[in-house]
Amino acid sequence: MEDLEPFLTIAHKLADAARPVVRKYYRTPVAVDVKADDSPVTIADREVERTMREILGAELPDHGILGEEYGRENMDADYVWVLDPIDGTKSFISGKPSFATLIALCHKGKPVLGIIDQAITDERWVGVMGQASTMNGTEISARDCEDLKSATFFTTAPELFRGDAAKAYDAVSTKCRVPMYGVDAYAYGLTALGLADTVVETGMQAYDFCALVPVVEGAGGVMSDWSGNPLTMESAGDVIASGDARCHHDVLVTIKAAMA
Amino acid sequence: MEDLEPFLTIAHKLADAARPVVRKYYRTPVAVDVKADDSPVTIADREVERTMREILGAELPDHGILGEEYGRENMDADYVWVLDPIDGTKSFISGKPSFATLIALCHKGKPVLGIIDQAITDERWVGVMGQASTMNGTEISARDCEDLKSATFFTTAPELFRGDAAKAYDAVSTKCRVPMYGVDAYAYGLTALGLADTVVETGMQAYDFCALVPVVEGAGGVMSDWSGNPLTMESAGDVIASGDARCHHDVLVTIKAAMA
Repeated sequence: MEDLEPFLTIAHKLADAARPVVRKYYRTPVAVDVKADDSPVTIADREVERTMREILGAELPDHGILGEEYGRENMDADYVWVLDPIDGTKSFISGKPSFATLIALCHKGKPVLGIIDQAITDERWVGVMGQASTMNGTEISARDCEDLKSATFFTTAPELFRGDAAKAYDAVSTKCRVPMYGVDAYAYGLTALGLADTVVETGMQAYDFCALVPVVEGAGGVMSDWSGNPLTMESAGDVIASGDARCHHDVLVTIKAAMA
Repeated sequence: MEDLEPFLTIAHKLADAARPVVRKYYRTPVAVDVKADDSPVTIADREVERTMREILGAELPDHGILGEEYGRENMDADYVWVLDPIDGTKSFISGKPSFATLIALCHKGKPVLGIIDQAITDERWVGVMGQASTMNGTEISARDCEDLKSATFFTTAPELFRGDAAKAYDAVSTKCRVPMYGVDAYAYGLTALGLADTVVETGMQAYDFCALVPVVEGAGGVMSDWSGNPLTMESAGDVIASGDARCHHDVLVTIKAAMA
């Protein structure tokens, strides 16, 4: 793999370009379209992604791109950028600053660089494989949490868990110390800051989780799917993030028992 | 009732004094105590409330005070200040800026002035009976929403609804257009801004809801208990806020049918 520093510079450039677009549309009456998967999208999502794609097209034309709004491009490349212009579009539309712009770089499918950028609260989390993660330039680390019983657990919304996944959610939310809701990618940022302990979600897409992996893992945390496998661009969307590997193991065991 | 303007000046003074204390402890490792009602409290909650009580003691010694952390004082007074130093202590502890300092003035039990202050995002909502509500000094108004089916609905956490209240929650969250979670008093601020449509909560105390009433109503919205009665300092803690009276009526009818 090449040195990642030049790519990190580009990733910051993408996030810097996204911010003014996000701010321009925040808390303005944007039209909301509903996509085939029933999720909402606005002109802000589209304009942010176009802005980032233009930069990548100019700077790194050989790299691939997988974006939430404009699909796949050059996916055979070793390096693929995975973009969610606004993760948490519902929060964005409601004027709640817990959405984020997610920027990931995957090498042969594996997330090696990630940015979580919150344009309103002016917070940027950066993770690069093999380096300590940072928030606004300061090194961060996850906190100790020996088991789920001691954990502050975040998820976006309970009704997103259906069928067997609902059993998993019930088991985790009942066993944890404090269940918390509603903050999209921001919950992973809080875990990397050592302010929350675990996040469990389902039905995510590559653009929802790839950027989170280097941030959480570079802060000393662990991310995996619900079977404990590392997350790649091809993973199905059942995701666990934990600040402490012991808590992560407990969440895995709890989910496995609930779905047995 | 006296002119409320001098009291509004004091209310701003309380919020101004609360901010540096909130900021000092935000995202620092504060010790968390668990109160008799199982809710968490930190040194930040206590110090913010003491700071506000000192100002009231000096400026308005004849007024009463009802605060979350230090109880009741001079409750026979016509004017009683109702204070929640940090509404959403769990969010505060998790470093999520959706908590707020809530400051209300009640006249003979009825909320006539309210402030919702978010010290991190620098947002202050102000409501005064008979006046248009403001956020950071700019007039705000709730939006049209003709029924629950069209509504963005907020609540803090589903597990707070128990027994019959759980039936009410299920009915409202199933019928609404978009259910959203996890933002404490901030949800009422979003409703007053015309970015959300209704909030339904249970188990609230006077210090959780009194400040919200003048803000939401001064933005053209409606607040009541689950039977449709106006909220006073003595109300039990089942609360509905809506930006549009038609949506409010629909929520009332939906809850009544679910609990019948």
